[in-house]
Amino acid sequence: MNVWPPPWHLVEEAVDTALAEDLGTAGDVTTAALVDAAASGLAAIRFRTGGVLAGTWIGDVLCDRFDLMIAWDHGDGDDVGAGTVVGEVEGTLADILTAERTLLNFMCHLSGIATLTRRFVDVLVEAGGTAAPLLRDTRKTTPGLRALEKAAVRCGGGVNHRMGLYDAILVKDNHLAAFDGDMAAVVAAARTSYPGVPLEIEADTPAQAVAAAAAGCDLVLVDNMTPAQVRETVAAVGGRCRIEVSGGVTLDTAADYATAGADFVAVGAITHSAPAVDIGLDL
Amino acid sequence: MNVWPPPWHLVEEAVDTALAEDLGTAGDVTTAALVDAAASGLAAIRFRTGGVLAGTWIGDVLCDRFDLMIAWDHGDGDDVGAGTVVGEVEGTLADILTAERTLLNFMCHLSGIATLTRRFVDVLVEAGGTAAPLLRDTRKTTPGLRALEKAAVRCGGGVNHRMGLYDAILVKDNHLAAFDGDMAAVVAAARTSYPGVPLEIEADTPAQAVAAAAAGCDLVLVDNMTPAQVRETVAAVGGRCRIEVSGGVTLDTAADYATAGADFVAVGAITHSAPAVDIGLDL
Amino acid sequence: MNVWPPPWHLVEEAVDTALAEDLGTAGDVTTAALVDAAASGLAAIRFRTGGVLAGTWIGDVLCDRFDLMIAWDHGDGDDVGAGTVVGEVEGTLADILTAERTLLNFMCHLSGIATLTRRFVDVLVEAGGTAAPLLRDTRKTTPGLRALEKAAVRCGGGVNHRMGLYDAILVKDNHLAAFDGDMAAVVAAARTSYPGVPLEIEADTPAQAVAAAAAGCDLVLVDNMTPAQVRETVAAVGGRCRIEVSGGVTLDTAADYATAGADFVAVGAITHSAPAVDIGLDL
Amino acid sequence: MNVWPPPWHLVEEAVDTALAEDLGTAGDVTTAALVDAAASGLAAIRFRTGGVLAGTWIGDVLCDRFDLMIAWDHGDGDDVGAGTVVGEVEGTLADILTAERTLLNFMCHLSGIATLTRRFVDVLVEAGGTAAPLLRDTRKTTPGLRALEKAAVRCGGGVNHRMGLYDAILVKDNHLAAFDGDMAAVVAAARTSYPGVPLEIEADTPAQAVAAAAAGCDLVLVDNMTPAQVRETVAAVGGRCRIEVSGGVTLDTAADYATAGADFVAVGAITHSAPAVDIGLDL
Amino acid sequence: MNVWPPPWHLVEEAVDTALAEDLGTAGDVTTAALVDAAASGLAAIRFRTGGVLAGTWIGDVLCDRFDLMIAWDHGDGDDVGAGTVVGEVEGTLADILTAERTLLNFMCHLSGIATLTRRFVDVLVEAGGTAAPLLRDTRKTTPGLRALEKAAVRCGGGVNHRMGLYDAILVKDNHLAAFDGDMAAVVAAARTSYPGVPLEIEADTPAQAVAAAAAGCDLVLVDNMTPAQVRETVAAVGGRCRIEVSGGVTLDTAADYATAGADFVAVGAITHSAPAVDIGLDL
Amino acid sequence: MNVWPPPWHLVEEAVDTALAEDLGTAGDVTTAALVDAAASGLAAIRFRTGGVLAGTWIGDVLCDRFDLMIAWDHGDGDDVGAGTVVGEVEGTLADILTAERTLLNFMCHLSGIATLTRRFVDVLVEAGGTAAPLLRDTRKTTPGLRALEKAAVRCGGGVNHRMGLYDAILVKDNHLAAFDGDMAAVVAAARTSYPGVPLEIEADTPAQAVAAAAAGCDLVLVDNMTPAQVRETVAAVGGRCRIEVSGGVTLDTAADYATAGADFVAVGAITHSAPAVDIGLDL
Repeated sequence: MNVWPPPWHLVEEAVDTALAEDLGTAGDVTTAALVDAAASGLAAIRFRTGGVLAGTWIGDVLCDRFDLMIAWDHGDGDDVGAGTVVGEVEGTLADILTAERTLLNFMCHLSGIATLTRRFVDVLVEAGGTAAPLLRDTRKTTPGLRALEKAAVRCGGGVNHRMGLYDAILVKDNHLAAFDGDMAAVVAAARTSYPGVPLEIEADTPAQAVAAAAAGCDLVLVDNMTPAQVRETVAAVGGRCRIEVSGGVTLDTAADYATAGADFVAVGAITHSAPAVDIGLDL
Repeated sequence: MNVWPPPWHLVEEAVDTALAEDLGTAGDVTTAALVDAAASGLAAIRFRTGGVLAGTWIGDVLCDRFDLMIAWDHGDGDDVGAGTVVGEVEGTLADILTAERTLLNFMCHLSGIATLTRRFVDVLVEAGGTAAPLLRDTRKTTPGLRALEKAAVRCGGGVNHRMGLYDAILVKDNHLAAFDGDMAAVVAAARTSYPGVPLEIEADTPAQAVAAAAAGCDLVLVDNMTPAQVRETVAAVGGRCRIEVSGGVTLDTAADYATAGADFVAVGAITHSAPAVDIGLDL
Repeated sequence: MNVWPPPWHLVEEAVDTALAEDLGTAGDVTTAALVDAAASGLAAIRFRTGGVLAGTWIGDVLCDRFDLMIAWDHGDGDDVGAGTVVGEVEGTLADILTAERTLLNFMCHLSGIATLTRRFVDVLVEAGGTAAPLLRDTRKTTPGLRALEKAAVRCGGGVNHRMGLYDAILVKDNHLAAFDGDMAAVVAAARTSYPGVPLEIEADTPAQAVAAAAAGCDLVLVDNMTPAQVRETVAAVGGRCRIEVSGGVTLDTAADYATAGADFVAVGAITHSAPAVDIGLDL
Repeated sequence: MNVWPPPWHLVEEAVDTALAEDLGTAGDVTTAALVDAAASGLAAIRFRTGGVLAGTWIGDVLCDRFDLMIAWDHGDGDDVGAGTVVGEVEGTLADILTAERTLLNFMCHLSGIATLTRRFVDVLVEAGGTAAPLLRDTRKTTPGLRALEKAAVRCGGGVNHRMGLYDAILVKDNHLAAFDGDMAAVVAAARTSYPGVPLEIEADTPAQAVAAAAAGCDLVLVDNMTPAQVRETVAAVGGRCRIEVSGGVTLDTAADYATAGADFVAVGAITHSAPAVDIGLDL
Repeated sequence: MNVWPPPWHLVEEAVDTALAEDLGTAGDVTTAALVDAAASGLAAIRFRTGGVLAGTWIGDVLCDRFDLMIAWDHGDGDDVGAGTVVGEVEGTLADILTAERTLLNFMCHLSGIATLTRRFVDVLVEAGGTAAPLLRDTRKTTPGLRALEKAAVRCGGGVNHRMGLYDAILVKDNHLAAFDGDMAAVVAAARTSYPGVPLEIEADTPAQAVAAAAAGCDLVLVDNMTPAQVRETVAAVGGRCRIEVSGGVTLDTAADYATAGADFVAVGAITHSAPAVDIGLDL
Repeated sequence: MNVWPPPWHLVEEAVDTALAEDLGTAGDVTTAALVDAAASGLAAIRFRTGGVLAGTWIGDVLCDRFDLMIAWDHGDGDDVGAGTVVGEVEGTLADILTAERTLLNFMCHLSGIATLTRRFVDVLVEAGGTAAPLLRDTRKTTPGLRALEKAAVRCGGGVNHRMGLYDAILVKDNHLAAFDGDMAAVVAAARTSYPGVPLEIEADTPAQAVAAAAAGCDLVLVDNMTPAQVRETVAAVGGRCRIEVSGGVTLDTAADYATAGADFVAVGAITHSAPAVDIGLDL
């Protein structure tokens, strides 16, 4: 599997920030006191539980910071079983020990996101087949790690919703209220200022969704609807724009939404509440 | 409750990084297109589910970046019920909408950590009473957010283990192996280089723990022991050093460890896998 | 006129960078040697030639860095005549003299962009009336100043094309070649990876434009066509997607393109080659 | 030709800033979606119009950021004809496409400055021969790019005036006014505080220039004088200090100033209003 | 001798900051004007007076910034005589001349600290033998260089006291006063908040020291005591905690303190007032 | 006395860097554990030994970072006696205790430089009267603090030599050697590349000094000459350029150089080896 990495300098910044907070001004005092600077080491990166690998670029950058060599046996997006060795790190023992926790903190977190994403994707595909909606992330990401977490979502088989406030217009209740709910006026205002930017409108009811589609938006985001309501909305909109389901989708309910006819299903939990995968470094 | 915040400049850096990734180079295009720059707004920060509040300093710094005013009805560490309004934000509607997601991403994440921490502390105290061990965090934190997450642990009633590689020596298997398991030699080496730094040794068996204590370390970290094994170790060490339990402690098993006589219980999951609390902004 | 400013922190970074390069490590030695630190000053910001004002936010941030007060008589986007005072700066004489060149370098440059943009817009509107295409910028901006220059384009009445490589897909010759010119395959690949991102395709001929539109792209960018060819392309595409004219549009030829039926006209020169407006500070 | 580059870290910072604004948090989505990561490419950097090459160091640093190889056929300062290939870039096709616009934005801008500088120098030398004044730049540079633009001026055959407020004292009207026009007092004050820093005084009339020279400054900057007035001033000053002409010098009038006897001619337009040279990347 | 270096990124930041302030925006104009860019050079780093070498990592990083090669004949911590060549630098003459002052500024400063440290250590060891107290530094370091200066102390044979406000609690008069001098209450408060952090208390009298030790602190810092008073304090404390002497220790008085029984002797002057060692670069 | 401060942003950067290294990621744990966050405090900044005050801007910026108020009773450059209170700080006790060491580390260091500078200036003026040479600093400064240390030199009554490699050409042995000692060729090369930059040449003998002056440099720096040799050189140069004495000038020998006729005396020790002044904070 070939998954596009985040911009390289963002990976570097994330790694450098993490190292700085772990090393402080004294560095790794345990290693300084106890490890022979000349001793070499070799360590296997092992998934202790099964999951989807994400963040090989973290390992690449981190090893570059330490003059360590890293070789990957698996790539981003691979769904591996418990006990699988996904890569090996080679270099001085001192460097390996100093880098260990930073490497694992990133990879457990990112692979946790990729793994939960994949679980959702699997449910959607199994239930929806070729008509299954695509799984999308949200802006509910960990501050400072959005680019990396959105890359992890891609590793899990999801696609990215907007990266931030800057690359799509998403109209919510409060914006609509300022226009007294006049969808046409909202769309006109948005298109005038940003004619090239995707325009999405949140809708709470099928009627609102139809109004938004009729006004010419690119996508309606239906919020907290049941699968039946989604189905009704899809029918009413009749293909005039794309439809994204948001709110209340869990691993238990995802299958019900898979056949409702929406284009996308958005799940915030894949970035804000994915449990870390248990990955260890075996020397 | 009065919980010491992280160093102010780290809060500022975290907020600035989060804003930068959300605003990009175009800023909040939805607000730019649709919101009257002169309109004022007032929003309540509401816990949709119950939990422990953490991160009021995030709100303080963020509002400062936007010329918003924030007033808190609750403080860091308060355990509030679902529906509680913990604070209000006032300023222009445009600024409130632009800042909303950044505020919530931080507060849901940090309050999630504080909440899970408090749940563990409650279990330990209920089972262990005045003899209950203290709950400690680990270095298994989200890269870039360690200082903030460790402050959230304090909000939850936990205490901090070492902040990084630089402020305590923690001897693990690999270090011991390099000394052929000679505890006295390890302790001597550590004390020679860093006589003022806390010295902790990981032990897998009661015998190892006794050897470490006898060699003069400050704390033994017993790894993956059952409550019974911990009890045996505590007895064997006999107060020569402090004892921290690590590995395998969950909300279900914590009560069993609460009475085992250890000084600390370490739980990595409170920082690496705490689910986000659901907090919203009601205009 | 009310034009949305760039994200505030980007204005701050640009100002801080400019001040750092002008002040070096010794600061303003002329002022240090010759100006009474207590003397106060008042200066008028005057357009020596006519033009469109852009960058009041630069003045706001810069004055904040110096404890200067600034009051604007005109706002971003105002088209003012030669000799117009657009604002006044008040504070210590020392601060005004030190800040002068930085203020002017930004404002002359940004107002230069806004002015050239307005001249193009005026030509398009005069010739095209309500059917006039919108004027768009390109990525041919001064490195480090893109967000500010694109805001200046908005001040001039233009709208922004994509901000960078990250917020729209723009397929060019080289990408097409890799797919042997198979438009459908290109569109499918783009939509699979980034289903929510605007998809634009560059076309050199009407036939290519039709193929791109038929394949389902959002916009065709017709490159280096005459007005007649544009007209032909617009007719052939028949509204299936939007059309942007690019290449060879000057102030002399813009009127010819204004009635060709395209949605947008892109002009790189408005950012890469706009002459600076002559603005001065009169004490 | 061998032209000294700007300090290396400033080139790196400029390139990194430019890449960051172009890549955002999602990176080059077109390349991610459409380009085979393993495909290799080779591209020629071609001047589409004639001009003076400047900024090979940009290419060097940029290629280093991408693991691209760059080979130069021409060096900074070479005046090349339309169609000339000045260098080649080799590496993955993906990297070349992602780096293309950043490379060109810098090189078109810097070569534009070098080219306009060379045109002025040519006029001065042709008219003035060995007695021709040297062409100097000003502080009217693009904010954030001063070091690079001043290097481009050197590529064009100009010499640099002061780099900023910190490396020369330049006395203007407002400073003089504070001393009631007493040149001797101004010079004494400047020399007392900064005896090692070059001292320049702006003069509007020959009499003022003579007074400044008599007071002991290093250079008089004569502002907005006709060639005849410059000649008169040069004669009156009689070699007591150097003389720089500033204001009103264009390509049309430069020849008239070339024989007026001044040491330097300053032209702000070479940095603030040089049109970009048209350079392209041919794959 | 093998002395652990500071965290690498801190060395890099220090070197980069130093280069930036020395190069400004124009770079090394002397070298630019006068040195053949192709000429190669070889320079010896020579101690003109005797001293202890510290900061080889500065040379390593600096040379990496310039594509220079550096070879060390001595290592950090070596006490070398006047005239000793400790290393050689090879590369272009231009780079060597540009890097020279930055290299020497660091190495003269850091070796100055190491040398003064070693002189104190020698006095303590000669007088105290195997019972000699260890020499410790303080937080009285040069702002911005603490990690490097504390590494230089290690090169001199000293050990580090706390790195900052964050890695040890040090109770002084003002803190005690807030508790009405109640040592037990102070210790309880400190242990409650930070049970894992070393707890040190400053004492002005033997009685205070005994009270602090009895209350359970880890170390008493006795301030401005005579050797006789230290001896009395050591006896009174009776091994209940460690004792550090602070204040008034000079090279003249150090021997008197060496046999007083304290564990540590703290000397602020080794970092805040060590004269620079005279090191030169011989081409 | 009114001494021009360093550029403000450099003071801010220095303070922020110092705070970051002192606070780490845990902050001031002593204050966090022991100090009532609401308690207010008032502290006097007292010179324990006499000296020259430098760095009030440090206090200003630092207090701004903490919401502390600072009031100065003395200004930069004041030579005050032991026991003098130079300013008071008011705010919360917690903030005062956290900021204390950073404030003092800067002020003791900078005032140490100002004090040693003043001692040299006093010797020169007493011996040389109105003909006394000015005291100048060198580039032998503490890495990262040059702008601040050079400002401290000004506080002591010295004047600044070049700030870095970028604002003056200083020709040394190695440069001369590359021109086979041909002074005229060296001067021509320097003037061609940088006609506006001060040109200084180091000379070891009176003959070399004369040759340099004759070739047209601005200043000769005579290195390691006795006062008699300086006198001889001054006479031989005969006013054709300025003369600076460098090397071997101590407080003991300065008087002998004061009457030798040079324009400047350079002393590196005032920045690289000035002992810190003892300043304390009395609550």
